[in-house]
Amino acid sequence: MEKLIVLLPGDGIGKEVTASAQDILETVSEKFGHSFSFESHDIGGIAVDNHGTPLPDQTVEACKQADAVLLGAVGGPKWDNLPSHLRPERGLLGIRKALDLFANLRPVKGFPTLLHASPLKEEIINGSDLLIVRELTGGLYFGTPSERRDNGNAVVDTLTYTRREIERIVDKAFQSAQLRQKKLTSVDKANVLESSKLWREIVEEKKQDYPDVTVDHVLVDAAAMKLITNPSAFDVIVTENMFGDILSDEASVLTGSLGMLPSASLAENGVGLYEPAHGSAPDIAGKGIANPIATILSAALLLRYSFGLDEEALAIENAVEAVVNEGYHTADLHVENGKLINTNEMTQLIAEFI
Amino acid sequence: MEKLIVLLPGDGIGKEVTASAQDILETVSEKFGHSFSFESHDIGGIAVDNHGTPLPDQTVEACKQADAVLLGAVGGPKWDNLPSHLRPERGLLGIRKALDLFANLRPVKGFPTLLHASPLKEEIINGSDLLIVRELTGGLYFGTPSERRDNGNAVVDTLTYTRREIERIVDKAFQSAQLRQKKLTSVDKANVLESSKLWREIVEEKKQDYPDVTVDHVLVDAAAMKLITNPSAFDVIVTENMFGDILSDEASVLTGSLGMLPSASLAENGVGLYEPAHGSAPDIAGKGIANPIATILSAALLLRYSFGLDEEALAIENAVEAVVNEGYHTADLHVENGKLINTNEMTQLIAEFI
Ligand SMILES: CC(C)[C@H](C(=O)O)[C@@H](O)C(=O)O
Ligand SMILES: CC(C)[C@H](C(=O)O)[C@@H](O)C(=O)O
Repeated sequence: MEKLIVLLPGDGIGKEVTASAQDILETVSEKFGHSFSFESHDIGGIAVDNHGTPLPDQTVEACKQADAVLLGAVGGPKWDNLPSHLRPERGLLGIRKALDLFANLRPVKGFPTLLHASPLKEEIINGSDLLIVRELTGGLYFGTPSERRDNGNAVVDTLTYTRREIERIVDKAFQSAQLRQKKLTSVDKANVLESSKLWREIVEEKKQDYPDVTVDHVLVDAAAMKLITNPSAFDVIVTENMFGDILSDEASVLTGSLGMLPSASLAENGVGLYEPAHGSAPDIAGKGIANPIATILSAALLLRYSFGLDEEALAIENAVEAVVNEGYHTADLHVENGKLINTNEMTQLIAEFI
Repeated sequence: MEKLIVLLPGDGIGKEVTASAQDILETVSEKFGHSFSFESHDIGGIAVDNHGTPLPDQTVEACKQADAVLLGAVGGPKWDNLPSHLRPERGLLGIRKALDLFANLRPVKGFPTLLHASPLKEEIINGSDLLIVRELTGGLYFGTPSERRDNGNAVVDTLTYTRREIERIVDKAFQSAQLRQKKLTSVDKANVLESSKLWREIVEEKKQDYPDVTVDHVLVDAAAMKLITNPSAFDVIVTENMFGDILSDEASVLTGSLGMLPSASLAENGVGLYEPAHGSAPDIAGKGIANPIATILSAALLLRYSFGLDEEALAIENAVEAVVNEGYHTADLHVENGKLINTNEMTQLIAEFI
């Protein structure tokens, strides 16, 4: 298979971890006889430095031409005080919108040998394996007006959704549930928000089309509680952009190994974008000690979702599991009697296991 | 001191737990030589049944005439399918707005002898003692328009704040921090939302007026993570209505004893409203087994904040602590070698300790 993958390393440890993932993708392409080519482009803070904007046009164009996009992370203290249109995060929001990446899939599953690092008690986190499906291009983060009013004495942000936008993410969630435990939890605030009422109606309509999936509705405040008290009760969670932002980050720390969690952001027909769930970690950037696993597992999702290469994806996932199970870990984790290694060593080991 | 307290028992266990709290307030008033009178009014589902609306005018009027209001809980399956203007929650939103209860204070602190019930590991939850100050009458839950558009094919909700609304809650939070560990964390999404940018600016302005308080800003997604990984890092958290809704419920399960957490909702000059952090628990309503402690501790907050009776508040808090430390508990908690008692027994014991 011949494919073009665009890398968007971004800022901080983004560079190191995307380089690792590229190594792994090259290992896979050799082993399985594919031909992947790579092209790197700027996004985030480095794009501000090099091009005066967090999302240069050539980056967007390159992504549109690509077969898939792998992103590292954006942001850092250097760009924290720029006016908002120059903030690195704008690059992220911009590329999501430009590629119409409406579906953000965030699996949360711990490695048995690492669950000791969870902030939760073992009996609570044990057996948890959930997928958060977050709507990524609508809602409060994109609605207009978003502006000051009354001479700066008031402010407004706007949460909007069209029926279509909700339908497509709900469909994606039902389909994801069909491939898993067939249990969908829709999270909203339907006792207060009109948008949540429409959301809930659409979930109720759609469930006729997926009779094999059981559905429940949980209010966002209750969901924030239940993720902590009973995470293993969830299979697939679907929710709108802002609730998904908060809940998926909340969920990402439950297993104690945020550095291992991948994510996929998918469009309806276009290119998909894959990135680790963690951020740019400016404090450890450039030291060669970052954990590349979340990005490597994101590369596995890329192979699965964008190229349909399930066997290759599994080869990566199994290799990661094998290395982790042997006690190897990077400095973000404390593993009793474990073997502390750096980014390169981790990458090499995973490559060998493939 | 002569005071009129309006009770709004509401639905489910609300009736039982407000009756307990009334007993305790009567015990305190005898012991300390006060004269508290009580008046009960309907809110929520029961108000829908009795008056056809979740918030009857006479309830609002009675609260406005009162010196303080103590609420139980609203809601239950019986009213779940009513049109939204008849939902019990509307009563709660309505009374907040009618009394201008802009500041919701939710302390989260575990009892050492109950921390074993926390879903978090002991070393994580140990020493946590935080206060969430949630803005309660603005933001997305009250903004207009909140409506369907485009023949029902689109929907909009609106997040609005005036500078004044933000200033008063930020002031309240700084003042609360001054009475505690003098550490304020302001939570927003200033990398995306215009309302959060104004929020952050106002916190930065206000901090000049409270030089003894240290301030930091945390994004809401990061805050949702940090509450789990390092809850004891927080002292006072201040945030807008919806973020506060999610984060305060998330925080409320950290200690493992939601049934013990009180809350206070305060106006600028008017009457304050006090209620347990938990809900109406329809599954155990009427059985006499509900945990009354959250409501009893809410009554303590009522004495402290609305009547300035700090000694009396402390008498309640100390009595609760003593009873809990002796191993007494209601059925919501599992205490090894503990003494399981019902609502009445718990109330009597606390009264005796006062
Ligand atoms: C950087 C920010 C705009 C972004 C978001 O909130 O969507 C991030 O938090 C995420 O979750 O990917
Ligand atoms: C019932 C609902 C409207 C309410 C809210 O979200 O404000 C509740 O969840 C709360 O937190 O008091």
